[in-house]
Order: sequence, then C-alpha cells, then structure tokens
Amino acid sequence: MRPWEDKIRKVTPYVPGEQPKIKDIIKLNTNENPYPPAPGVAKKLANLDVNAFTKYPDPNVSDLVNAIASFYGLDASQVFVGVGSDDVIAQSFMTFFNSDKPIMFPDITYSFYDVWAKLFNIPYETKPLNDSFEICASDYYGENGGIIFPNPNAPTGVAVSLSFIEDILKHNKDVIVIIDEAYVDFGTKSAMSLINHYDNLLVVQTFSKSRSAAGLRIGYACGNPELIAALNAVKQSYNSYTMNYPSIVLGVEIVNDRPYFEKCCKQVVDTREKTKEALSELGFTFPDSKTNFIFATHPKYDAKEIFEYLRNNNIIVRHFNAPRIDNYLRISIGTDAQMNRLIDVIKEYISKKKA
Amino acid sequence: MRPWEDKIRKVTPYVPGEQPKIKDIIKLNTNENPYPPAPGVAKKLANLDVNAFTKYPDPNVSDLVNAIASFYGLDASQVFVGVGSDDVIAQSFMTFFNSDKPIMFPDITYSFYDVWAKLFNIPYETKPLNDSFEICASDYYGENGGIIFPNPNAPTGVAVSLSFIEDILKHNKDVIVIIDEAYVDFGTKSAMSLINHYDNLLVVQTFSKSRSAAGLRIGYACGNPELIAALNAVKQSYNSYTMNYPSIVLGVEIVNDRPYFEKCCKQVVDTREKTKEALSELGFTFPDSKTNFIFATHPKYDAKEIFEYLRNNNIIVRHFNAPRIDNYLRISIGTDAQMNRLIDVIKEYISKKKA
Repeated sequence: MRPWEDKIRKVTPYVPGEQPKIKDIIKLNTNENPYPPAPGVAKKLANLDVNAFTKYPDPNVSDLVNAIASFYGLDASQVFVGVGSDDVIAQSFMTFFNSDKPIMFPDITYSFYDVWAKLFNIPYETKPLNDSFEICASDYYGENGGIIFPNPNAPTGVAVSLSFIEDILKHNKDVIVIIDEAYVDFGTKSAMSLINHYDNLLVVQTFSKSRSAAGLRIGYACGNPELIAALNAVKQSYNSYTMNYPSIVLGVEIVNDRPYFEKCCKQVVDTREKTKEALSELGFTFPDSKTNFIFATHPKYDAKEIFEYLRNNNIIVRHFNAPRIDNYLRISIGTDAQMNRLIDVIKEYISKKKA
Repeated sequence: MRPWEDKIRKVTPYVPGEQPKIKDIIKLNTNENPYPPAPGVAKKLANLDVNAFTKYPDPNVSDLVNAIASFYGLDASQVFVGVGSDDVIAQSFMTFFNSDKPIMFPDITYSFYDVWAKLFNIPYETKPLNDSFEICASDYYGENGGIIFPNPNAPTGVAVSLSFIEDILKHNKDVIVIIDEAYVDFGTKSAMSLINHYDNLLVVQTFSKSRSAAGLRIGYACGNPELIAALNAVKQSYNSYTMNYPSIVLGVEIVNDRPYFEKCCKQVVDTREKTKEALSELGFTFPDSKTNFIFATHPKYDAKEIFEYLRNNNIIVRHFNAPRIDNYLRISIGTDAQMNRLIDVIKEYISKKKA
C-alpha cells in the first residue's frame, strides 16, 4: 500500500452506456435523439466568435437561464443551469440532501442516484416498485432526508400523474422533493406547473433527450428562488464557470425553437408507438412507456442473448445486469428505419431459435 | 424559517472577477489571454458536425487526453481532463483530501482553496507567506492531510523552483501534494518533469490562460496512473460526461499547435516586462511576477482609489479586499496597446493627485 492511499476516496462509479467509435452502428443504448438539434444551431455555430473563446463565459449563464425561464413562463430566479442534468442532480444532492435521515428513491430507477449518495456520504433507502414497475406513494410518507425519482421512471418508462406528485409533496413538506424529468417531453405532464405552489419541489430537465443535444451537456433545474439561490451558492463554491461559451449560445438557439422541438418529440412518440406494436406482435411485453425508450422482456427468450445477437448485427441496446430487471432490454427509440432494422434482426433471431 | 431549510448546505461562494457586458472595456481583471486561440480553431469550428451534437460525447475524453499526454511526453493513463482547472481541483479535493488532519496552503493564494475546503468539510490550515510574499517550505513539514499551492502563486505572481517543490514532496510522502500551475507557461519551470519520480504529486494546468480558451472550460491534471484512476472514479461518480463535444474537438486543435502557443506566451511575457518597467517608473513596487499579471502597490496612492479611477476610464483590474493585500492591484497582461492605455490612465491619475 502506498503511504497516501488511506486519504483517497473509494467509490464505485456509475457505468454509462457504451459510446462506440464504430461507424454505421445503430445506437439505441443511451436514449439519444435520432434527429439533429434545431436548424438554427448550424447557423449560430458558423457565426461563433473565436475571439470570445479567450474570455471566461458569463458565470450566471444569464442568456440561457432567461431563455429557459421564458420557455416555461417562469422567472429567471427560478432556473439553474448545469453541465447536463447529471451535474444538476449531483449538485442538488450536495445542496439539499444534508440530513441524518435517509433520502428515498425507488429500487429500480436511474442507477446514478445511489452512486451520488455514496459519493457524498448521504444515507439512503430504496423503496421497491410493485410488480407492474409502479412507484407506491405511501412508501414515501415516512420520515426521510429528501426524495428523488424520475418521472417517467427509468429504465422502466412508467409515468405518474401530477396528483401523485402533489400527494408526495404534501406528505414531505420538510424536505426537498426532486422530480427528474429527463424523459417528460415524450408524453408526460411536467411538474413545472407545480413550482409556484410547492416551495419544496425541484424539477430537473435536460437537453440530452428531447432537445437533441447530449453532446453539448446542458441540464437545468427549476424551483422556488430560495432553492435556486442555494444551488447557485454551491455551484459557485465548486466551479464558477461550468457552462462554456458554445453551449450557452447554442443552448439559447435550441430552447428558442419550440416548433422544431415539438415536431421532434411527436416524431419520436409516433415511432415509439409503432415499435411497441411490432414488439408486441413478436411476443414481447413491456410497461407502457412514456419515454424515448421501451423496456421490453420476452417470455421465451433470454434478454442477454438477444442483446448479444443485436450487438453482433451492429445494433446496441442496453441490458442491466441487476436484480428484477436482468431479463429486460432498454431499447432507445431511433428513426423509423433504425427501428425497422431492429425488428427485422429480432425476427431473424427468433426464427433461428425456432429452427 | 421554511421547514426544509435545515437540510440545505450553507456556503460562502467564491467571488469570480467581473465579466462585464460593456463594449470597448479593457478587461485586465481575470488574467485572460489577449490573443485568440490557435488559428486552427476557427477551421475546426466551421467543420463541427451538428449531427454529432445529438450523441453523448466520449466520457473518457480520449482524444484530448491523448493530445495532452503527447504534448508532455506522458502516458494517457497519467492525464485527467475536466471543465476548467477549477473543476479539476474541486474533484481533486474530493478525491485526495480525506483525512482528519488539516490540508495546508498559503494565507495569500488562490481564494478558491478555502471555499472548496469548506464545501467538502475538509479541515485546513493556512501558512503565512513571508513579507516578500514567498512560501516558506518548512511551514509544510508538519503532519497534514494534503498540500496545495499555485506555482507561480496567485495573486502574488511569485514562483518557486523545482528543488523547492521536491523538498516539499520529500517531506510529505504520505499525502498528495497538488501544484496548481495555472500560470506556469509564462516563465516558470513546470513540475510535469517530476511526475515520474514522485507518486504523490499532482500537477494541474488550464487552457484558460496560456492557451487562450477560458471560454471553452478545459483544465487537466497529470500524475501517476493510480492518482488519475482515483480522480476518474470520482468524476464518473459525479458526472460521466463533463467535457462537451466542441471543447474536446477544439481543445485537441489548441494543444496540438505548439508553435502558436509558444509565440503567444512569449508575447505576453515581453509585454509584462515592458509593463513592469513602466509601472516602476511611476513608483509602483511588485514582486517579480512570472505570470500574466502583475501584483502592484504604490507607496503614495491607495489601490482601491486607483482601481476606481481605472474603472471610470473603462479599464478593469482586480482589487482584493483582504488582509495584507488590500493596497495591491492585480493587473492582467493585455496587448501592448491595452497596457499603454493603462499606463496613460495611471499617469493621468497621478498628475491629478499631485495637482
């Protein structure tokens, strides 16, 4: 052992989905959007001022904060921006989850929550989803240090209603409740409308899914101005300038193009519904996804085996080697052509198994 | 008091230098480079693939890590990249400073160190610089939880030798010693050459000063592969994808253009030396800066008053309202023309005071 080893933090990091460098692969493993970001982005990019790169960007990210606030009809004091929603949620854990009591989240959910809790030494308890992969509100009525869950949940794709969220908020007025809405734009009602009614609510969203900009790293949180000020104080105690100049300029362009955003979301939803039908016909079952992925299982075939068969045919989906979900595949929604190819390869797999 | 307020982390954030939106201001307050980034950046920017924005960037930032490793003749396993050196140092505090013993740094130094220590609940002790603003090596011989200081130091501009750093490393084999080399390229020997000899050394640098890219947010740390692996584990437990696609592509272009980088550094150093002469002639004194700023004081005139006079003439420098240094100005090195204008305005101020 090296003499300094006992001073080093030991952690088990989150394992992100593969970002393969192979060309012509159909990548359906990290829930990216198959469509490019708003058309204005290319023009803004061409006009970016290289001389501005020498200067630090605006530490308050005002242009982007204002654009997001305006999109939701909120005040700028209700919006916080970070380097992807992971950055926003990590900072939220640090800012809001300071209690001896455990924070609570579902047993099957975004697999970064327990990683952050461990990183920041936050006690936590997981509450099991029921057999239909639904969150049970009453599990979250007891004493706790804070609550977080995605709506819709990941990797299940199952959504809850706003009245469900209000019920949880009312039972937990002494802690912060974070709703992680990474996938909300694909057919779920956002809790943004509850922000002015519940001062303990923080709603987190991202540009990585519905806004086609995972490569720019932009996420945001909305909540009452006191929560946002507390987040900004922690952020300014960590790194004053997190959002770089290109992300600020291009991010504004993306959020300002509402019609393109809505068109893309609708296209993804249409493709998802068609894919659900095709998967059903092949015997797959899945919770009713309101996201840009489908969490599917087959009563006859092994998920890991299908995963590998797809991989060998240049299609990557996600398989989690975790209790209760290890016979499921999480399949991101790509273009119609990509999903048709996926279905064809699965048909091929099934016919070979039957042969 | 709101019922959830006791769960919120209370911090006093770092206060970054002003980023004014006024045009035609001469900005000498945050040590940015007056010259644009490498000329290849504009071409790379024009060719950036908007379609790639939809995908998550490479979480390992391999292209940029490889380029930096190659620049210093290191192995890729010895390089960690983050969102500016603030991000890199914040993560280093979290990764390496886990001890009940206090970490140590100078009393006059980068004012983010105590902010990070407080944010992460790390005990710390500051060691006073001597009256010439020099670090005293023997102050760092005692038991501690880790050491960090900039070389050259900021805001003083004073550098130490590599043998000084080796002395500190040898006296502290059981902790991690971080040398923050934000300003090293303007005339100080880098400790990069010591990395293969001391396994407890971490050297941090940034693209924000000598590489003219504060707006892109790129910093890096170099050290033995075990330290870099520990940093990556913490980073992957916080945010898998911190470096966005434009920063990775443009960062590679910047680090690959060594001749332009060296030319810019030389130009800044030449201007600094001319500015030193001009300030001396006006009666200012300052430690012998090896950075892209001068930390100057005048025996007759009040620093705060000069600061305000300059501000009223559209020149911003930095004044710290802190013990021992509140009669100093930290003046970043701009172009020759900008520094001539600075000197002219100071002359005007002095002649008015004499009148």
